[in-house]
Amino acid sequence: MQTTLKQFIEVQLPEIETTMFDLVEKIEAPAHLKESMLYSLKAGGKRIRPLFVAAVCEMYNKPLVSSYVVGSAVEMIHTYSLIHDDLPCMDDDELRRGKPTNHVVYGEALATLAGDALNTLAFGVVARLENVTAEQKLELINLLSVAAGAEGMVGGQILDMDGEKRLLNLQELETVHVNKTGALLRFSIESGAVLAGASAEDRKALVAYAHHIGLAFQIQDDILDIEGTSEQLGKTAGKDVAAEKSTYPALLTLDGAKKKLNEHYNFAIEALQKVSIDTTLLQQFAQYIVRRSN
Amino acid sequence: MQTTLKQFIEVQLPEIETTMFDLVEKIEAPAHLKESMLYSLKAGGKRIRPLFVAAVCEMYNKPLVSSYVVGSAVEMIHTYSLIHDDLPCMDDDELRRGKPTNHVVYGEALATLAGDALNTLAFGVVARLENVTAEQKLELINLLSVAAGAEGMVGGQILDMDGEKRLLNLQELETVHVNKTGALLRFSIESGAVLAGASAEDRKALVAYAHHIGLAFQIQDDILDIEGTSEQLGKTAGKDVAAEKSTYPALLTLDGAKKKLNEHYNFAIEALQKVSIDTTLLQQFAQYIVRRSN
Repeated sequence: MQTTLKQFIEVQLPEIETTMFDLVEKIEAPAHLKESMLYSLKAGGKRIRPLFVAAVCEMYNKPLVSSYVVGSAVEMIHTYSLIHDDLPCMDDDELRRGKPTNHVVYGEALATLAGDALNTLAFGVVARLENVTAEQKLELINLLSVAAGAEGMVGGQILDMDGEKRLLNLQELETVHVNKTGALLRFSIESGAVLAGASAEDRKALVAYAHHIGLAFQIQDDILDIEGTSEQLGKTAGKDVAAEKSTYPALLTLDGAKKKLNEHYNFAIEALQKVSIDTTLLQQFAQYIVRRSN
Repeated sequence: MQTTLKQFIEVQLPEIETTMFDLVEKIEAPAHLKESMLYSLKAGGKRIRPLFVAAVCEMYNKPLVSSYVVGSAVEMIHTYSLIHDDLPCMDDDELRRGKPTNHVVYGEALATLAGDALNTLAFGVVARLENVTAEQKLELINLLSVAAGAEGMVGGQILDMDGEKRLLNLQELETVHVNKTGALLRFSIESGAVLAGASAEDRKALVAYAHHIGLAFQIQDDILDIEGTSEQLGKTAGKDVAAEKSTYPALLTLDGAKKKLNEHYNFAIEALQKVSIDTTLLQQFAQYIVRRSN
């Protein structure tokens, strides 16, 4: 990882996590419900989404406090989707990031409800943001609802489930990922632009970056499923191949997938050239995403 | 049902339902996801929550269009909670309002995701409301998030699950219901007051009304489980008794529960006397709730 990004993450990650855990700690709710919510929030992960929100604000030299809250909201949505995704009626996973999944620890009923509560809380914390205009907050809530719901992430999960029944073509596979993982990544970048008050031109370029980085992220995920070890990934490697899932390597061969990854990386970097400010941080983020080993 | 309320419902119910179905129809999402969401939204029910939002706006002579959208949002939250509640890992119900439950028709995975999508969509439709100030919308989103989440409805469901393991005392039972069903009913009344721009005094009185009506609603539910037939209820009667669940009749005897119901009815009517405008509609609503047979 390059220096600027490394230093940025070292400083910002603890701030993001403290903010996020505090937002849950301080609500008045049954103790085991909060415990279950916090268990999955604290299970780690790269925190790419909140780091993106903060990175965009940092690039525009804006205060980062609000970005921690918006980043927490998107991480809550991401986390609830993982909790529900791991349920026996969905992917039936017992291990996530090397730890037992939420329902293994707390039971399916509590896991379902903890997910529901995180989904709902995400919108509340954005509505209660301080030092952000009412119009900005409403724009963020609207964007988050579209990105997280039937038109975005949840819709993508449905398409992904359909894709387990038959081999998708490349365009269908891209649609799955643009929605399933891409929509929240796009929200992360775009919400940073909203908070920073970026110009319409900058925002358009940043959204293009987010689009390509989202796809690159997914392609690298597919590649790691083949090339990574379970230990590196904190989840079972080779699962996609075993399940005969539609993936980029399955459709394009492993080499073809790597070529595609590189294309999207280049498009992402190209998009950043249209942004009016120094984008070193997002350039390094792009490199990190295509080179990561977990 | 008394004339004023009967006429109000006859006119407003179709408006509410048309608005709510349109809000889902128009989103761009996989067809079977939308179908699953609409299946449960269209499964009927009394629509008490959206009717409450509209009733408060009607009392203040305000236009009702926004109330249909806010009412749709709260009905989406209520509906998602029923979908998840009926899942095998929760209450495992195969029948709701006389129809097969969502997961029986669409499978557990799709039912879980349809519930998630309704939860998320509720916040989006409020954020996109027209002809309502940004401040009002944010207040509504904040209230809805608290009412629906860990601090409200979801928290109440957790307490309710705990109550299946042991007999609760009266205070604990009240806490369950104030959260599980009361929080959304309170939101319905309070959101109407926000939309109507009611004074702080009026709002306080309306919230007191909502508190007592919420408890009255639940006590009548418990009574109907004993006195109603499965046909009337559209669900299995006598289920609470069979499950040895903590209910008002179980704690207070059937007569004691009826007395309690009457007490809360009286408190609700009393609260309305402090409201500055004519509250006939909400008075009739209170009567309807304590006298209903399903």
